[in-house]
Amino acid sequence: MQPYEIIKAKRDGQPLDPGDIRRFLAAYTQGEIPDYQMSALLMAIFFRGLSAAELAAWADAMLRSGEVLDLSETPGVKVDKHSTGGVGDKVSLCLAPLVAACGVPVPMVSGRGLGHTGGTLDKLESIPGFKVGLSTAEYRRLVHEVGCCLIGQTETLAPADKKLYALRDVTATVECIPLIASSIMSKKLAEGIDALVLDVKVGSGAFMKTLPDARTLAKTMMGIGQAMGRRVVALLTDMEQPLGRTVGNALEVIEAQDVLRGRGPADLTECTYALGAEMLVLGKVASGVHEARAMLRRAVEDGAGLAKWRQIIERQGGDPRVVDDESLLPGAKGEAVLEAAAGGHLCTVDTEAVGRAAVELGAGRLRKEDAIDPAVGFTLLKRVGDRVEKGEPLVRIHFNREDKVEPVKARLTASLKLGHVAPEARPLILERLA
Amino acid sequence: MQPYEIIKAKRDGQPLDPGDIRRFLAAYTQGEIPDYQMSALLMAIFFRGLSAAELAAWADAMLRSGEVLDLSETPGVKVDKHSTGGVGDKVSLCLAPLVAACGVPVPMVSGRGLGHTGGTLDKLESIPGFKVGLSTAEYRRLVHEVGCCLIGQTETLAPADKKLYALRDVTATVECIPLIASSIMSKKLAEGIDALVLDVKVGSGAFMKTLPDARTLAKTMMGIGQAMGRRVVALLTDMEQPLGRTVGNALEVIEAQDVLRGRGPADLTECTYALGAEMLVLGKVASGVHEARAMLRRAVEDGAGLAKWRQIIERQGGDPRVVDDESLLPGAKGEAVLEAAAGGHLCTVDTEAVGRAAVELGAGRLRKEDAIDPAVGFTLLKRVGDRVEKGEPLVRIHFNREDKVEPVKARLTASLKLGHVAPEARPLILERLA
Repeated sequence: MQPYEIIKAKRDGQPLDPGDIRRFLAAYTQGEIPDYQMSALLMAIFFRGLSAAELAAWADAMLRSGEVLDLSETPGVKVDKHSTGGVGDKVSLCLAPLVAACGVPVPMVSGRGLGHTGGTLDKLESIPGFKVGLSTAEYRRLVHEVGCCLIGQTETLAPADKKLYALRDVTATVECIPLIASSIMSKKLAEGIDALVLDVKVGSGAFMKTLPDARTLAKTMMGIGQAMGRRVVALLTDMEQPLGRTVGNALEVIEAQDVLRGRGPADLTECTYALGAEMLVLGKVASGVHEARAMLRRAVEDGAGLAKWRQIIERQGGDPRVVDDESLLPGAKGEAVLEAAAGGHLCTVDTEAVGRAAVELGAGRLRKEDAIDPAVGFTLLKRVGDRVEKGEPLVRIHFNREDKVEPVKARLTASLKLGHVAPEARPLILERLA
Repeated sequence: MQPYEIIKAKRDGQPLDPGDIRRFLAAYTQGEIPDYQMSALLMAIFFRGLSAAELAAWADAMLRSGEVLDLSETPGVKVDKHSTGGVGDKVSLCLAPLVAACGVPVPMVSGRGLGHTGGTLDKLESIPGFKVGLSTAEYRRLVHEVGCCLIGQTETLAPADKKLYALRDVTATVECIPLIASSIMSKKLAEGIDALVLDVKVGSGAFMKTLPDARTLAKTMMGIGQAMGRRVVALLTDMEQPLGRTVGNALEVIEAQDVLRGRGPADLTECTYALGAEMLVLGKVASGVHEARAMLRRAVEDGAGLAKWRQIIERQGGDPRVVDDESLLPGAKGEAVLEAAAGGHLCTVDTEAVGRAAVELGAGRLRKEDAIDPAVGFTLLKRVGDRVEKGEPLVRIHFNREDKVEPVKARLTASLKLGHVAPEARPLILERLA
């Protein structure tokens, strides 16, 4: 079929042939199909969706648009984790070294923060000297020698996704589950992994605000993984409040190190263990999640996780002394405290608004070109359900620009809702799909 | 709103502000909004439609993208007719001179044939010397002095439509009633008319295959016209078989002249009178269709219509002798006859297929760049319901390329269905909307 006929067939809800999908995407990546035909097809997909067969062909074509890494020289089942993004989500920083310390190789290609969410690459770069822009050869060597490597997307991995994402971003075709799922999965599968754990965030700080939407996204991603012969497990986890206590790049590195020392906040520690246990089972070093959790706990207690983290930092050009001397990480000039205007219980957190407040402070970026300030951010002193007295500190604000303090306080005040009745406790792990 | 937000709002079914629509279309026409954003918006409109208010703003913006002709120097109500296109539809050629002869100025901007349909401009150009590419100044002068001028779309009339149509053509967003309606109406209203009669064709040879679709298109166009203060009447007319007996450019000129002489086929004559009567009433030279029909009949009987036709041809550079000596029109080299393989009644005609057979013979074009052969075409010897004996001639084929005769006969054979029972008679004028 010609490009025109493919657009028309999708528009009219007729099934597309996998071969036609592959040719369309390949021709688009090579510049033979113009953006205006792709954007019409994307909008038709927004309305009509993609069937399982179409989606598998779409994701496969994206995957094959570039290099698919071969990590077969490294023995064992290579397992990665992908989070759909949230506020305060620094799990990758403690999870990757812990899982690698337990003997499962973790090849991890991460992204940058955009909009209200943070990104693993930005957090890593707050460590002086840490390089995320390694070549695929270096990446392959570090996975082999260290058991873990944390890099950013290269030009050669799924270039169709890069081109397509830029187009979706300006044509209002981002919020479309099959396109989101194939974008994520094509990048992840190009890393050379054998299995994948998905952390699909749900709630006010996530892209998926409701459980049914998150479930659909998770199942869609799992379907793509299965069609390509990869084992995929998904956890749907709560993002109705930031994960852990900190939001901001260097602050989050410190908190991840707290988890590796066994003194991290309960929710962040639990999220890390739950995801890590799935990875150890998929990686075939544990026969079940119970055994896997015990292995993770041991790697925390005997310092193996922290040692692996030091090694990762050192081999990726960073200063490993930050692990033991956190004053070597960028620090903010000033601190301010947001106090409770009245007493009560912390009932709800507009987590996306907290993320946007962090962006205003300088911790994130609204456009890809924006620079970020690694030192600034928040320490959240109360969690949903906690009792708060009038005048008690709610949030510590770590700032470099004093003029940002008042607007950020106003944003935070609006996003933290206090009430007389404590809300019902909400579980952290909402659902497991396998 | 920014272009992105406008696309997103339409995608999500939210109402668009008329000002935003105007700015979007103006920026697109000036090249400030890229094709890929417009094609995403067009596809969203395909799925979401346009409300009456949005549509009026859209059509108005298209109209204002170029020159809006001012024919106020010519007294009287200027009235045009627009047909949505069919096979054998040569009504404009006899209608325009007849109505002009009755005292209603007819400024008419027509199109070329594309796909299975013919176009008025191609038919006019089969007259030696006839020029359809006049300047707007010449057009204005001829409307004033002759009472009629038949031209093609200029660069200055609704340029947004030209740009948009080219994009819709390659992004599968042509078949969308609000976009079709605004495309037609913006061009028609740019001509400088006061009122318009729409001939919306329905059936196997029309773009609208069903009465409800045709009704929706007619009402959509009428809504745009009314929003812009123009009076619009629509007739829904039958296109389950070609109009008249001929298909092919010079052949259709001859048949239109037959109508002006009072000896045209019944259906073509009736269609011309029905549309002409509406034009005379809108043009305020007749108080009702009964009186209007009498005026049209008189203009045929006293030769005023034919005289006006001669004058139009002459003033537009053509050879007016073709009116009285039809051998001066291009003639085909050969004639072949398709005979009935069996006896029966002519039950149905796949009229689009007849149009495509005419294209194969050389009478039409599949792409805008294609040349056409003005001499070739068909004379259809039977109408739906007629009794046919085995071996009796069904179609006379006027050809210049002998190698096309057999494939065209095969196409015609497949498109003319004979049966034992005569089908019920179908009216020519299916509905009138005012």
